Amino acid sequence: MAVNLPLPIPENLIAVAGIELGHAEAGIRKANRKDVLVMKLAPTATVTGVFTKNRFCAAPVQVCKEHLSNRKAGAPIQALVINTGNANAGTGESGLADANATCAALAKLLGCEASQILPFSTGVILEPLPVDRLVAGLPQALSNLKADNWYNAALSIMTTDTQPKAASRQVKINGHSITLTGVSKGAGMIKPNMATMLGFMATDAKVAQPVLDHMVKQVADRSFNCITIDGDTSTNDSFIVIATGTSALEINAIDTSEYTALADAVLGLSQELAQMIVRDGEGATKFITVTVEDGMDVEECRKIAYSIAHSPLVKTAFFASDPNLGRILAAIGYAGVDDLDVSKLNLYLDDVWVAKNGGRNPDYNEEDGQRVMKQSEITVRVKLGRGKAEATIWTCDLSHEYVTINADYRS
Amino acid sequence: MAVNLPLPIPENLIAVAGIELGHAEAGIRKANRKDVLVMKLAPTATVTGVFTKNRFCAAPVQVCKEHLSNRKAGAPIQALVINTGNANAGTGESGLADANATCAALAKLLGCEASQILPFSTGVILEPLPVDRLVAGLPQALSNLKADNWYNAALSIMTTDTQPKAASRQVKINGHSITLTGVSKGAGMIKPNMATMLGFMATDAKVAQPVLDHMVKQVADRSFNCITIDGDTSTNDSFIVIATGTSALEINAIDTSEYTALADAVLGLSQELAQMIVRDGEGATKFITVTVEDGMDVEECRKIAYSIAHSPLVKTAFFASDPNLGRILAAIGYAGVDDLDVSKLNLYLDDVWVAKNGGRNPDYNEEDGQRVMKQSEITVRVKLGRGKAEATIWTCDLSHEYVTINADYRS
Repeated sequence: MAVNLPLPIPENLIAVAGIELGHAEAGIRKANRKDVLVMKLAPTATVTGVFTKNRFCAAPVQVCKEHLSNRKAGAPIQALVINTGNANAGTGESGLADANATCAALAKLLGCEASQILPFSTGVILEPLPVDRLVAGLPQALSNLKADNWYNAALSIMTTDTQPKAASRQVKINGHSITLTGVSKGAGMIKPNMATMLGFMATDAKVAQPVLDHMVKQVADRSFNCITIDGDTSTNDSFIVIATGTSALEINAIDTSEYTALADAVLGLSQELAQMIVRDGEGATKFITVTVEDGMDVEECRKIAYSIAHSPLVKTAFFASDPNLGRILAAIGYAGVDDLDVSKLNLYLDDVWVAKNGGRNPDYNEEDGQRVMKQSEITVRVKLGRGKAEATIWTCDLSHEYVTINADYRS
Repeated sequence: MAVNLPLPIPENLIAVAGIELGHAEAGIRKANRKDVLVMKLAPTATVTGVFTKNRFCAAPVQVCKEHLSNRKAGAPIQALVINTGNANAGTGESGLADANATCAALAKLLGCEASQILPFSTGVILEPLPVDRLVAGLPQALSNLKADNWYNAALSIMTTDTQPKAASRQVKINGHSITLTGVSKGAGMIKPNMATMLGFMATDAKVAQPVLDHMVKQVADRSFNCITIDGDTSTNDSFIVIATGTSALEINAIDTSEYTALADAVLGLSQELAQMIVRDGEGATKFITVTVEDGMDVEECRKIAYSIAHSPLVKTAFFASDPNLGRILAAIGYAGVDDLDVSKLNLYLDDVWVAKNGGRNPDYNEEDGQRVMKQSEITVRVKLGRGKAEATIWTCDLSHEYVTINADYRS
């Protein structure tokens, strides 16, 4: 059950010139299921990405990083290949060989080098990738390649997601109409640290490589790196931005108004895609925004916001619509901000002032708390009273359904 | 449902000379429920404790710390008073006044100073303590005072616990028979950081104050500070050791064989009481021991052990008896040990070698994993291959019942 997540309408997803998408049913884990996606890029495209910091980062993530950092002049990235049903993580040397074999097979079909392919996987960890079935599915994916195929792309990367996640927007920059379209997936094992599992976004702007590299980090830190469902940072998180370069808009420097305009648009779309993941969080019934203000620095604001967002007791209280808000204070208290003076702390639930100077606000009454807790969208606002920094994290509640999904996921 | 937690048998709990316990039904939150406990100490007793590091530490914890650190000569701690049903945390200045009023009321009844009383509370956070009902219940508790009342003491401090937790042991030290008896409580909001909510232990040995202070920290770090149920560090955690001094055994220094013998016995009983809390963890169906070995230092071993123990995905896999063990690798990978070389890592589930040098052990087969996952007691053993340190954490699984309990706790 997703929280206020509108189903993407295929017609609303705008093709981005310079990128074609093709899907296949390769039977990676289950039959008759779209489980392979190929994204083919124009030779003018620049590509960048950020990846999980999990030390058990998956074999395809390692290969992606290598292919992105060792690019040769004249050998741009030509295609991305994504499979679901198997994460190819915790698979050691043979997993790396499988990821490389996938790139080699697609490169052969496209007539390029293996190093011009980026591979991605998502699914169960610690099981060997069925590389033969994956490779056998590639011709079917290539036969489906077309520009207006973003809806099928969103379908093809789903695992425990209940809905495909995709969005488009168009912005005018310097008189040029620029298109941005992206897809994302993920519903469990979601607490991205650098990026999320998996987000892909394309724009037709022409963006110089170092500029795009700068933008993806800036954007990830304010979108995909601000969501959490269960605190489990995945082995496969990847967020990729592609600038196909087919538009006349050219961005070669960061300190330009064009950069700011495009970065804002990319950020807006990234936040929308990231929030879609939370809205479809495993078992989610509530969408929670946690904002921590007046901190000494962003890091301590994030620490406290994550502490609230990860507390099973806070999450189950949201599920129950129970204003047992002392649990939020406890989570703030153990967040690890050792010199926090709780007597300066104020807590709000939407417009309701719950805790004042570290204690219960005398004017707070439980009916007001109850009213907000019953909503499907709730903002928790903490004011630390010790500085000017702030941070926002998006999360969901913890329900019976989460346990059901994760106790049944493989079987 | 508790995991292999034998119900304590009242006759097996051995009275400790120099300490009497009295309980009352004060109606703190619900009627007809033992919810107040008084522990009265002999004037020869030394008392020490460790308390939560949660910044929102409860009013009674603040008062305990003050009374323990500002002791005057000739004015030893005379009694402890514990209530359930209300945590008196997140209650600001009025909460402190309530805790002090409780001490003053009991001191008046006992004919001592308020500073000779230690107060403890456990229950809902952010609600005012019903101090009038608590004070009104004290005479009843005093009328029940007796030495062989440990079973009722264990009953009186329960909240969401399904069973009382108590244990005794006797050890011979230097020819003296020494008794140790303790009680503990807690089933949710359990990830003690210094101590747990709540553990009380008494021995009849005579132990000098600085020696007892040293012992409690040493013991807490290897017992109550090694358990977690949901990662939520409480506002009220307290672990108290009382040496009543009625035995002829006198311990005045740390570097003695008597100290070691007593500390070992205290540790053994503390681990038993701490593990009882995990066995009765909210919704627990499995008791899990996580041991991380061959680390660079204890801190990194604990980081990784907690990361596994807190992962909702790992915990739900245990609940489902599903050997989806890649989730354990993911939790190891995001634990925050940034230079971890996963190619040196090995993972065992009881006697089954699951991951070898960072990948799936070629000899591992899922039937073996399945067999262990079905057990009610499971040991996860991680070998990091980078040093000689190790750490052990005890935890439980995450079940539907956990969500049910915490979505219903207050209502």
